[in-house]
Amino acid sequence: MTPQKISIKEKLDMFSDYWNPKIVGDLNNQHVKLVKFKGEFVWHHHEQEDEMFLVIEGEFDMHFRDKIVKLTKNEFIIVPRGIEHKPVAKDEVSVLLFEPNTTLNTGNTVGELTKSALEKI
Amino acid sequence: MTPQKISIKEKLDMFSDYWNPKIVGDLNNQHVKLVKFKGEFVWHHHEQEDEMFLVIEGEFDMHFRDKIVKLTKNEFIIVPRGIEHKPVAKDEVSVLLFEPNTTLNTGNTVGELTKSALEKI
Repeated sequence: MTPQKISIKEKLDMFSDYWNPKIVGDLNNQHVKLVKFKGEFVWHHHEQEDEMFLVIEGEFDMHFRDKIVKLTKNEFIIVPRGIEHKPVAKDEVSVLLFEPNTTLNTGNTVGELTKSALEKI
Repeated sequence: MTPQKISIKEKLDMFSDYWNPKIVGDLNNQHVKLVKFKGEFVWHHHEQEDEMFLVIEGEFDMHFRDKIVKLTKNEFIIVPRGIEHKPVAKDEVSVLLFEPNTTLNTGNTVGELTKSALEKI
């Protein structure tokens, strides 16, 4: 079967919950995910995985221990493994993630925001 | 050093050549690349790499042996390894690529369009 295209807008219209990444693509042992953020996440890092955050719509702040990086539409940031970070979004933001298929959303900080079985949409 | 953000628009403004992907990100042995297409590429496949094409601006057709998939802004397609494909763009299109850092643009079809040493911008 030849590949199908994916519309990011259509996928984003399929959910409205926050901090719950959905898998929308799978390649080379990496996942492409879409997630909506609003509010403040938890400080965490990933031991083995680098993470990429690409803003599709809206804006958010990526907090690091020594600075805050403001990200808006069509901007991305790569957070290398081991670096503590915390996304904070004043208003709703839609983000595309690109990361290994082993990545847990809260990294080393397992808690009530942890999502261990992600939905594919 | 904490991570810096990347503006896709700023990076796209830095080049105007076609079929010559630039590396704009590096994570988990994968590259994030930006490329501009115009015209018709060559039929090829990749033996070991799946490739993702995400349209940033414009539109193009991904030709497969059995169909053509039209892609526009905010749509993407993942082409699994082994599948022959050929991008064709009537007008200029800007595309973000996610693929392993071993990926050669023309895959198994080495020729005048092959770019073996990509620029990082």
